[in-house]
Amino acid sequence: MATTRVMRKPKASSVKTEIVSPKEISARIKKSAEAMVKEIKANQDPTFTTMQRGKSNVVWDEKKGYLGLGDKTITRNFLNVAHAKKFMQTSMIMSKTNEYLLHNKTASIREIYYELKHTIEGTKENTFEGQDESDPVIVDIEHSVNTIREKLNLHANPKGTLYGNITLKDKMHNNDKFNASKLGRGGWSIMSRMEPEEIEIIETDADYLLVVETEAMFERLIEEGFPKDNHCLLIGVGGQAARGARRLVHRVHKELELPTYVFTDGDPYGWYIYSVIKQGSMALAAHSEFMSVPDSQYIGMTLDDVKTYGLQNVTENMKEGDIKRAKEMMAYPWFQNKKWQAQLQKALTEKIRIEQQALANKKLDFVATTYLPEKIRNKDFLP
Amino acid sequence: MATTRVMRKPKASSVKTEIVSPKEISARIKKSAEAMVKEIKANQDPTFTTMQRGKSNVVWDEKKGYLGLGDKTITRNFLNVAHAKKFMQTSMIMSKTNEYLLHNKTASIREIYYELKHTIEGTKENTFEGQDESDPVIVDIEHSVNTIREKLNLHANPKGTLYGNITLKDKMHNNDKFNASKLGRGGWSIMSRMEPEEIEIIETDADYLLVVETEAMFERLIEEGFPKDNHCLLIGVGGQAARGARRLVHRVHKELELPTYVFTDGDPYGWYIYSVIKQGSMALAAHSEFMSVPDSQYIGMTLDDVKTYGLQNVTENMKEGDIKRAKEMMAYPWFQNKKWQAQLQKALTEKIRIEQQALANKKLDFVATTYLPEKIRNKDFLP
Repeated sequence: MATTRVMRKPKASSVKTEIVSPKEISARIKKSAEAMVKEIKANQDPTFTTMQRGKSNVVWDEKKGYLGLGDKTITRNFLNVAHAKKFMQTSMIMSKTNEYLLHNKTASIREIYYELKHTIEGTKENTFEGQDESDPVIVDIEHSVNTIREKLNLHANPKGTLYGNITLKDKMHNNDKFNASKLGRGGWSIMSRMEPEEIEIIETDADYLLVVETEAMFERLIEEGFPKDNHCLLIGVGGQAARGARRLVHRVHKELELPTYVFTDGDPYGWYIYSVIKQGSMALAAHSEFMSVPDSQYIGMTLDDVKTYGLQNVTENMKEGDIKRAKEMMAYPWFQNKKWQAQLQKALTEKIRIEQQALANKKLDFVATTYLPEKIRNKDFLP
Repeated sequence: MATTRVMRKPKASSVKTEIVSPKEISARIKKSAEAMVKEIKANQDPTFTTMQRGKSNVVWDEKKGYLGLGDKTITRNFLNVAHAKKFMQTSMIMSKTNEYLLHNKTASIREIYYELKHTIEGTKENTFEGQDESDPVIVDIEHSVNTIREKLNLHANPKGTLYGNITLKDKMHNNDKFNASKLGRGGWSIMSRMEPEEIEIIETDADYLLVVETEAMFERLIEEGFPKDNHCLLIGVGGQAARGARRLVHRVHKELELPTYVFTDGDPYGWYIYSVIKQGSMALAAHSEFMSVPDSQYIGMTLDDVKTYGLQNVTENMKEGDIKRAKEMMAYPWFQNKKWQAQLQKALTEKIRIEQQALANKKLDFVATTYLPEKIRNKDFLP
């Protein structure tokens, strides 16, 4: 118990690839804007080019193990009536995010919408009618300057919690250093933006990272002393992982080189949560490099657990949505392996699901004393 | 800046009323069970008595300023076919929660459902068919032994975040002491159970507590340094406040005697969030004593703010659900005061709503530099 454990520190070369300075991003925005200005000065129709999105340009990069965007681009012209408004919106958001970057400000995607919304003088036209007009423009700019919105100082809502013996430093907040195993059982509330320019990972003694779907299971494992006894970190994502939580999982895995296991409910929705953490999502295919963890592994729940652990009494029936999702997932290239095909087929045949918390049927501490340790000892994972 | 601020510590007499030892709760459960045993031994039909719930037994306690339950009770008999299953379920949960209390275990309401679910030997009957059968039984027991589920060591999901110069101690986790202003900008993740038997409030230098509806506004205020500059605590509830967050708001207010302001979106849903924090809810009317903050005040958003702060451009249209809710709220006894009636009437007339984040239309820092400080300086609150 009292043996000194080795502290693992971030690998400098890995941290480096995660960092892009606000100055650099600002320079990219400026370059794009200057190209427009140049076109205008040359009496040409100014243009804005970004990546094409949607299924038709999503590619499964088997070698890298994550989803990416293909090389199809789209170009908008200011002097095209169909493009003009979006063109204006794009320049407004480019200009505003550049301002954020220069002044060390950040904003939620709802705030930037509100900040820029106004009626254009002398007209009855609004710059933006709703956030559904500003959100896609933000994505356009992310793709155009080849970055993630977090590095444009934008963010969505925070969600997720960190627990365990890891020390972080917030460079934008008095250089606070805090250890997520010393905050009682509550843990640290993961921010919406978890960029290394601001939040530095200092060190950990953990052997692996366990990502947990439900906050209730997260609390269970802490109550059982699981992270302490097993020297691991916990990240509770609370359903589909928010971007900040995904960034943190990605960074912990990459910078600290920690094995990463994902623990969700045993149903298509839970498995999809895993696949988004591992290979990224179609909607954010361009950002997998910063978000995904291709060599993470799936620890449970599986439908095989039902028999193995005698959980027949506490399964639930799959809903229509689950069945539809399972069928879709079976066709995804990144689910084309024996184990997952068997799992999805089993779901479609038996039409049952099994929740993480159903393990309480054995005993409250069963998950911590038996289920997880056995799976880890036997390397009983799905790929 | 460098003046030493006075540290406010919990008022012992207030802490005392919040504490009920697990031993005491266990004794109450035992007493109830022993009464049943006595009835059985006397060859009588065993009975279980609890409070009647639902609108017909909810009373508005004007003097205390919160919702409560009236004195209507219901009694169940074991030998009544219509009651027998629920009677069995009740004894099972009483016994299990008592076990938790004796062994210092806690469980989510989903876990206790799973833990107790099984097929009764020699029959095809399940003890519980779904959580919708165990949840109401838990409420029955809460009422029967006159406590809240947290003190039965049960809990729902955690939600909400704490930030600011306040020190807490977790007596169940190495007596960790941590200060919620020293965790970077993320803040402390509020637990599902925030009982004083386990989580002790040590001290704060704050002058007031600001409860914030959206996590995005919570992050905004931290980015602007608002809690530090204004010596206040922030609790971000993320929509309707979870029980743990409500307990913490209640305790901070009561134990530390901090003035409490609530800051939500300017719409019936936001105002309802406020009223639940202040006066409690009909569903949890019996627990207002432990949950409510009758002298909290409402700081915004109001529909008057639209004109005062020139936000006409960034209002949204109210939805059907908002209109329905506004009509209901107008009739609630606890909204029978001029200011709220005027506000609700305005909502119904103008059919608009205004979000917290719409203040970004002025400037990102407007909420921190102008809106909140002005409201507090002028005591511009709704009751």
